Amino acid sequence: MKNVLIVVAHPDDAEIGMGMRIAWYARNGARVRVHCLTTGTPEQDGAQPRRQECLSAGLLLGVDRYTFSEIPDTRFTEHRGSINAELFTIIREAVPDVVYTHFPGDQHIDHAITSQEVTAVALREAMNLCYFRSPYSTGFEPNLFFMGTQILMEAKMQALSCFSSQKQLDMEVFRRIASVAHRQHVHHRIVERFAPELEYVEMFQSARRIESAIEAPSMEG
Amino acid sequence: MKNVLIVVAHPDDAEIGMGMRIAWYARNGARVRVHCLTTGTPEQDGAQPRRQECLSAGLLLGVDRYTFSEIPDTRFTEHRGSINAELFTIIREAVPDVVYTHFPGDQHIDHAITSQEVTAVALREAMNLCYFRSPYSTGFEPNLFFMGTQILMEAKMQALSCFSSQKQLDMEVFRRIASVAHRQHVHHRIVERFAPELEYVEMFQSARRIESAIEAPSMEG
Amino acid sequence: MKNVLIVVAHPDDAEIGMGMRIAWYARNGARVRVHCLTTGTPEQDGAQPRRQECLSAGLLLGVDRYTFSEIPDTRFTEHRGSINAELFTIIREAVPDVVYTHFPGDQHIDHAITSQEVTAVALREAMNLCYFRSPYSTGFEPNLFFMGTQILMEAKMQALSCFSSQKQLDMEVFRRIASVAHRQHVHHRIVERFAPELEYVEMFQSARRIESAIEAPSMEG
Amino acid sequence: MKNVLIVVAHPDDAEIGMGMRIAWYARNGARVRVHCLTTGTPEQDGAQPRRQECLSAGLLLGVDRYTFSEIPDTRFTEHRGSINAELFTIIREAVPDVVYTHFPGDQHIDHAITSQEVTAVALREAMNLCYFRSPYSTGFEPNLFFMGTQILMEAKMQALSCFSSQKQLDMEVFRRIASVAHRQHVHHRIVERFAPELEYVEMFQSARRIESAIEAPSMEG
Amino acid sequence: MKNVLIVVAHPDDAEIGMGMRIAWYARNGARVRVHCLTTGTPEQDGAQPRRQECLSAGLLLGVDRYTFSEIPDTRFTEHRGSINAELFTIIREAVPDVVYTHFPGDQHIDHAITSQEVTAVALREAMNLCYFRSPYSTGFEPNLFFMGTQILMEAKMQALSCFSSQKQLDMEVFRRIASVAHRQHVHHRIVERFAPELEYVEMFQSARRIESAIEAPSMEG
Amino acid sequence: MKNVLIVVAHPDDAEIGMGMRIAWYARNGARVRVHCLTTGTPEQDGAQPRRQECLSAGLLLGVDRYTFSEIPDTRFTEHRGSINAELFTIIREAVPDVVYTHFPGDQHIDHAITSQEVTAVALREAMNLCYFRSPYSTGFEPNLFFMGTQILMEAKMQALSCFSSQKQLDMEVFRRIASVAHRQHVHHRIVERFAPELEYVEMFQSARRIESAIEAPSMEG
Repeated sequence: MKNVLIVVAHPDDAEIGMGMRIAWYARNGARVRVHCLTTGTPEQDGAQPRRQECLSAGLLLGVDRYTFSEIPDTRFTEHRGSINAELFTIIREAVPDVVYTHFPGDQHIDHAITSQEVTAVALREAMNLCYFRSPYSTGFEPNLFFMGTQILMEAKMQALSCFSSQKQLDMEVFRRIASVAHRQHVHHRIVERFAPELEYVEMFQSARRIESAIEAPSMEG
Repeated sequence: MKNVLIVVAHPDDAEIGMGMRIAWYARNGARVRVHCLTTGTPEQDGAQPRRQECLSAGLLLGVDRYTFSEIPDTRFTEHRGSINAELFTIIREAVPDVVYTHFPGDQHIDHAITSQEVTAVALREAMNLCYFRSPYSTGFEPNLFFMGTQILMEAKMQALSCFSSQKQLDMEVFRRIASVAHRQHVHHRIVERFAPELEYVEMFQSARRIESAIEAPSMEG
Repeated sequence: MKNVLIVVAHPDDAEIGMGMRIAWYARNGARVRVHCLTTGTPEQDGAQPRRQECLSAGLLLGVDRYTFSEIPDTRFTEHRGSINAELFTIIREAVPDVVYTHFPGDQHIDHAITSQEVTAVALREAMNLCYFRSPYSTGFEPNLFFMGTQILMEAKMQALSCFSSQKQLDMEVFRRIASVAHRQHVHHRIVERFAPELEYVEMFQSARRIESAIEAPSMEG
Repeated sequence: MKNVLIVVAHPDDAEIGMGMRIAWYARNGARVRVHCLTTGTPEQDGAQPRRQECLSAGLLLGVDRYTFSEIPDTRFTEHRGSINAELFTIIREAVPDVVYTHFPGDQHIDHAITSQEVTAVALREAMNLCYFRSPYSTGFEPNLFFMGTQILMEAKMQALSCFSSQKQLDMEVFRRIASVAHRQHVHHRIVERFAPELEYVEMFQSARRIESAIEAPSMEG
Repeated sequence: MKNVLIVVAHPDDAEIGMGMRIAWYARNGARVRVHCLTTGTPEQDGAQPRRQECLSAGLLLGVDRYTFSEIPDTRFTEHRGSINAELFTIIREAVPDVVYTHFPGDQHIDHAITSQEVTAVALREAMNLCYFRSPYSTGFEPNLFFMGTQILMEAKMQALSCFSSQKQLDMEVFRRIASVAHRQHVHHRIVERFAPELEYVEMFQSARRIESAIEAPSMEG
Repeated sequence: MKNVLIVVAHPDDAEIGMGMRIAWYARNGARVRVHCLTTGTPEQDGAQPRRQECLSAGLLLGVDRYTFSEIPDTRFTEHRGSINAELFTIIREAVPDVVYTHFPGDQHIDHAITSQEVTAVALREAMNLCYFRSPYSTGFEPNLFFMGTQILMEAKMQALSCFSSQKQLDMEVFRRIASVAHRQHVHHRIVERFAPELEYVEMFQSARRIESAIEAPSMEG
């Protein structure tokens, strides 16, 4: 049994960044927790609907537990102490085998702060740490490519469609990126060897992975 | 069944860099091939003994096949075309799932050239690529820590002892590095969670790893 | 009147990397020269057809002059002196205002060598230097986005279709990348402001640009 | 007509970093707005004189609008939320084609914070983003050199002389740097080709430039 | 006579990072001041014992003056203004020839903030700036190796043993790291030339060193 | 007594990069050897005059020994084996305490190759390694500033005037760079503290410095 913890700044960040991988983890028996630091809404009464959207999306993807902090949106720089404190609580509670979060070079400052704070806590409390690629990152160089199937992509698309309050979500763009982004990094001779159903990619930068001689090598190598 | 290919510049580079991991792969059923680009000896008749040392070490670690090119030692910069040609032959022959080689920032120029050439070929012919840490690298930032047992370390030490022609090999130094190097990167709270028999480290930088949704997640996360 | 020089390793590298921009330059009165360092074919008699393909593609895009060296394919590392000498001749002949070439971090070693050699010559012989993005580059961070129209993309596609000897050319993949790759870097609020006919991107890294107070500022800023 | 927005931490930062370029923009019909985040004075009644100095300098350079926030000097780290909020207001008001600000690696922490916050906002609200070089930056690698004339340098010197409250301003040093700094980056063969009146440099790092196929190529290439 | 200032986040950071070097400075007549930004204890009455531990350790190493601020532990991100103000006071009081502090890439956020703030102040108030290596840094590439003797290591061990409130301090690990860490960076041919009593290393990254032609060259070169 | 070895690609590279420092070393009793890899002249009979120029310049600066290889100019990429072999001979002969050479990011490919080869040999044969700044380097970030006097600058200028065959040498530009380049890196508050006779700078990047506890700390700190 494996514990996966994903910490994001806003609702839908986890689903956009790694919706297929969440579904894959869940379908393979891992326990996935998503923690969202802000509900990202200017109006106080807007938080509840966004939480509900998260819960719906999480349900579709198989998320075990979806939790929230109330860090003020766009003001993470001024609440780093609270973020740090919440992260320690969550990560000690979740005892994750692997932590996922934003990439430190994300252009959105709340994302970057989230990444810095999660990195610091995860490096001393969890074995493995991995950054997902958001759109609009700077300097993101993937070293982990997750190739997903049509079925996982459909699950991701359905999850994203839960966030109806976010009119900006251009789901078709996400699908198109997921269908070609790896071609900018992976040689066509490699792509040709993929199983044909592996049509979609999510890209990650693995920051730390600790492997134990007690376990057998993974399939990938 | 997994195919592992390790390409190194000199005899004993593979054993120093990842002897424990080789033994671990072999004991878990992977097929490990080591290819060594030079026998690294100025005298023509010195090559045969060094090859024999490699074969003995490989036998102890469970290497499936140990092969050699005859690139002139310390002159890799002037034989890049031959190196490239040999690598294409080997890698197409081996069809590896994962390729290991020197880190591009290694201070030894033959190591650095090996890394550049292997990287270029591996990125278009193999799914996964990983750099091991040699002593004396510059700018090596590990993102993969392999924690090995006393038994694997003994196998590594025995393999290293096969290289009796290399008087410079200070095996005790290697053992000591392997017992503390991870402490400079991994927080003591993490180290305390390791199974107690995981006393030794080998450090790697994973350059590319492609995971497929068709497989289950690995144990590590 | 502006002189543009593009130096590439292989036939079709220029067209894949910056076909739209070539057509745009030509249509705006610039004189574009493409120089290709190898015809990239193992058989001696294969060179002529590939040159012919280049000339056809160049004609479609408005290339003023398409020239060739005969550096042995996949062996650039061993012919750097010849490459350097040819580049000095060409660049002094062309007197370019701007030079385009491969990105230094390209995974293909011939591309990387081309980039290193062109960079060294261009920095002392031309005002401006710019790298185009090939597929499969490592560490490419664009700082110049060229947004092209449907018409320019059609010109590019037609140019690419000239390279019939290259069966590997998956033109549809190139088109799809060109239609979404900028979305990984540019925020959707910016994309929404683009003129609607600007549907396709080519990405560059400007290495040096010298602007003169004697000229007026360009439109872009 | 082009809109240029320059956001700086302190009075005189814009004039020191890019006084010639401001004058050049203004003389070519661009509308230049400078926004200064602090008046950088410990005494409350010191702000007014410094603002007056800015306005005088701006007048000389042709600045269209010079505006101010009241972020406490040397305390930007603790007012990032306010900085962010002000920047959103300003940038949406100004609708700039290009935004200039400090380089992220500036040694002055207020400058670095300004750069981070402006970068985040500009990347989602403006097409183009460019960093000017302050004295004392770390890791600044210019990719844009602006060569100015004696006339523009005189305008800059006059603008700097408006800041009489800043006794530390060694204008002669700035002039000398501006007359040789490019020689550390640009080969003498290139410098010899400059029009003789282009004696002074201001150096920039272009972070993002979006060019449109609808426009003609700029003079520089 | 030389003035050395060391600024650290927590008690024992200076001793772990550079205890041998402190003792060496003191024994050679330099005046060493250590300033510690927090006493790093959640309980208010825990501060006094930790200060006492510092003073005892400092006494053993020959520290001239050991001073403290009361920045709240784990909350440096929210007190950067106070940190900056204290640093200006201290550094102007100490008039140091060289300042030592944490490395900017330290995984502990309080360490990283300390490094950023000290860097900014030191670069404008002190000639020389140097980062020591803490355990758990990311991206630390040493360019200064200090080789110490058994006697200095004993002084360091004794100093560390003063911090009895810190049960986590695994002194034996520190000693073992200090005895082999340089072997990962320095070739064995160099190590063999060391005077035999130079058994232990402390590693640094020199960020700025200003040498004057008025002085003679140092012994090292 | 200290041994200094400087390895450069061409005649005058050492004098341009570190003429003041050479004179300072020599005047303080160090033994300075300069080795030049090519005489950098296309005509065979042009070598002798250039060597004579070096010897004259070396005499003025106090160089102990000035030696030469005959690597073909602009063709270092194709003679790396010979360069490597010569370097091993020279460095083992010279037994230097410190080695100086070009910066790896120098734009001139012969300079870059020299730097790579010298780095590899020096890191295994010499304690200390340091890069001087040539004009036209890319990515050079100095961490060592050598402030020289008017007298040392005159010695440097005289040494440079020996290279009369190099009409391109604009000595006045070098002098002006040396009088202001540090102002782009060092805060004016620091500069104001310099002894008034320290008017000129040469900038370096110290790659490795090994200090021994057996020696006293240097004056600088």
